[in-house]
Amino acid sequence: MTTGPNTPTTPLRVLVCPSGFKGSLKPATAAECIKDGILAVEPNAVVRTVPLVDGGEGFTHVLVAATHGAIQPVGVCGPIGQPVDSFIGILGPRKDKDTTANNSPPRTAVIEIASAAGLSLIPPSHRNPGLTTTYGVGQLLLAALDAGATRILVGCGDSGTCDGGAGMLQALGARLLDCQAQPLPLALGGDSLLTLHSIDLSGVDPRLKNTDIDVAVNWHNLLCGPRGVAHVFGPQKGATPSQTARLAQAMESLAIAAARVLGVDDLDIDDQVRLAPGGGASGGLGTGLRVVGARLRPRYEVVRKFVDLGGGMFDECDLVVTAEGGIDYQTPFDKIPAEVARLAKKRGLPVIAIAGTIGPGARVNYDVGIDAFTCIIQRPMTLDDAVREAESLTRESAELVMRIVSIGRMLGRTG
Amino acid sequence: MTTGPNTPTTPLRVLVCPSGFKGSLKPATAAECIKDGILAVEPNAVVRTVPLVDGGEGFTHVLVAATHGAIQPVGVCGPIGQPVDSFIGILGPRKDKDTTANNSPPRTAVIEIASAAGLSLIPPSHRNPGLTTTYGVGQLLLAALDAGATRILVGCGDSGTCDGGAGMLQALGARLLDCQAQPLPLALGGDSLLTLHSIDLSGVDPRLKNTDIDVAVNWHNLLCGPRGVAHVFGPQKGATPSQTARLAQAMESLAIAAARVLGVDDLDIDDQVRLAPGGGASGGLGTGLRVVGARLRPRYEVVRKFVDLGGGMFDECDLVVTAEGGIDYQTPFDKIPAEVARLAKKRGLPVIAIAGTIGPGARVNYDVGIDAFTCIIQRPMTLDDAVREAESLTRESAELVMRIVSIGRMLGRTG
Repeated sequence: MTTGPNTPTTPLRVLVCPSGFKGSLKPATAAECIKDGILAVEPNAVVRTVPLVDGGEGFTHVLVAATHGAIQPVGVCGPIGQPVDSFIGILGPRKDKDTTANNSPPRTAVIEIASAAGLSLIPPSHRNPGLTTTYGVGQLLLAALDAGATRILVGCGDSGTCDGGAGMLQALGARLLDCQAQPLPLALGGDSLLTLHSIDLSGVDPRLKNTDIDVAVNWHNLLCGPRGVAHVFGPQKGATPSQTARLAQAMESLAIAAARVLGVDDLDIDDQVRLAPGGGASGGLGTGLRVVGARLRPRYEVVRKFVDLGGGMFDECDLVVTAEGGIDYQTPFDKIPAEVARLAKKRGLPVIAIAGTIGPGARVNYDVGIDAFTCIIQRPMTLDDAVREAESLTRESAELVMRIVSIGRMLGRTG
Repeated sequence: MTTGPNTPTTPLRVLVCPSGFKGSLKPATAAECIKDGILAVEPNAVVRTVPLVDGGEGFTHVLVAATHGAIQPVGVCGPIGQPVDSFIGILGPRKDKDTTANNSPPRTAVIEIASAAGLSLIPPSHRNPGLTTTYGVGQLLLAALDAGATRILVGCGDSGTCDGGAGMLQALGARLLDCQAQPLPLALGGDSLLTLHSIDLSGVDPRLKNTDIDVAVNWHNLLCGPRGVAHVFGPQKGATPSQTARLAQAMESLAIAAARVLGVDDLDIDDQVRLAPGGGASGGLGTGLRVVGARLRPRYEVVRKFVDLGGGMFDECDLVVTAEGGIDYQTPFDKIPAEVARLAKKRGLPVIAIAGTIGPGARVNYDVGIDAFTCIIQRPMTLDDAVREAESLTRESAELVMRIVSIGRMLGRTG
């Protein structure tokens, strides 16, 4: 009764590799829901789940799960100064090129910005990106050092801050100075950077020097300019137009101070700081992390190293089903469904994306290799209801998709 | 860019036979939207559209279109006494068994209850089924007689009344009498039937005697009892619990008076009146029409005579796409998608239903042969927005469905 018409005899091999639905479904949960929906229609299907993350919510848990590592709780100062139960991940041991010839592998910690400075940690009434701080991110970095990490992966995404990493730098021991060499107050948010003149790193935790920090960023996020973080993300994080203009100015101050630390002269400041790829990640935190020696990386380069994205994941697969909270005109720019589709298309595999919501301009995703997308919503409802019922809606949506795929398969065999 | 993966060379033959979306999309518009969505993905598909109706909104226009007939405007008294621009249809000439050997064919008029007593004619603040009247329906019948009709098809559905056809009978010249043989006031709605004792037909328009009236009803709608019209539809039409109980009692009075006219004795009143199939159609209007000699028919029997439903419609077809405003646990009971699915299944054809909204218990529709259903809604939205955007949402939904079907076809050919 719940199987599709003429269920075919050849088992369909489906790769399910969803993102999470922000604030609603974790990637692993989304993957299980989709798998359940598929199996309800095609009980013989071979379904492989590979939950994926960008740098945002879920980054730590997915990488820890993929490497059989461990989560370690860390209490930090949250984006509006409140105490927050955050965490770091310690990756499991890996037998690969990271293992040096005669030594134990480096101890790698994973941090996600969203767990200490995430938008979801800020009640809507308090969303003022001029005042929110990344101080807790610095505390997570210190916790990783305390845990003996010599390598740290930082995931950017889903932040609620726009302080250019100022709070984070202060937590690590840096002093942010105005033009009279007076230190700026602690953890006051992006607005306080308007008077930033220079950054004094002499007090920074010395262990950082011997630590490799790789930061997974959206390569399209810039620090300054009309496509800079203040203009693109400020309003999403609650900034009014005048606040956005002020934050844009604050990011200019940060760019100048950061360029000084990085030894970038005025001729190169546009290319290497103001408009450098990823420098605007997590409200400019990308640039702040560069100040303490971190390397920015396109986020899929980082994820791919740990999750089997782009490797054998697509082997022995007939159909790829991915998912994301929202699919719209921004999806092709470094979002998971588009990244999955690009890789799947190299292998000629069809890709279906399941979305919590379909936004404006979603059709552009057909061009990056998403062959069809569908929305989990089944009736007029509010976003709150959709979030609350996301699990069952996602399962039902996967079932619907698979029912139509089954109809198509039958037509393909007979047509 | 807008075609699916590996568009197959064999043109797919799709039959598109939607209902309308109540208060939103006419059947013909729904059919065009779905066709457009299919052709956007499969430009070579052979798409045949057969817009369908139950007895409700659109009944007249679809039958008139199918027979190349004409619409004739008729001003009537609406369900809350307001003037309403209603209409009747005059069917086009048909060369079939209705043509007698030596005569011109009977002139057939079509009436839909919804156009004179429909729920959509009543502002939500005035939805009191104890007070709304079918008086305008009687006026439509008179207009049909004036137009020379010797045969009248009446479509029930989408009514906002529960007067058992009392107003309609009065418009035709009948007198509704209380136990003291005093006439009930005109057009006062179902509540006034509480004191109904008998029906005097002596003043009824004599032309009715020579007129065949066939009424297309939902066969599952009963006049009385726990599944009677007051209990099942009263609340939908705006009745409070106490009003519902009063209306149920009013329908009992009608049953007794109608039984007298129809010559049904007490032993048979349950089978032949109270619980007779279709007697509860349009708030008991089905029973009222029987009082003036009309025959009730399952609505698909009537529709099938005029639209090619169940005949050649399914020939040379690979896939059936139907649609309806809502799909839920009631759909299997005489709603268009279920009826279409039952017929399609006899021919082994897969059926996909596109819905404005998916309601509770929709899964039961898998059992009647709907292989998959999907909802036109793409993001959290209100019902009002969905209604407003119904055309584009339906087109996009059909495109989505066809994209997934195309993926399935490709998998079927290669798998």
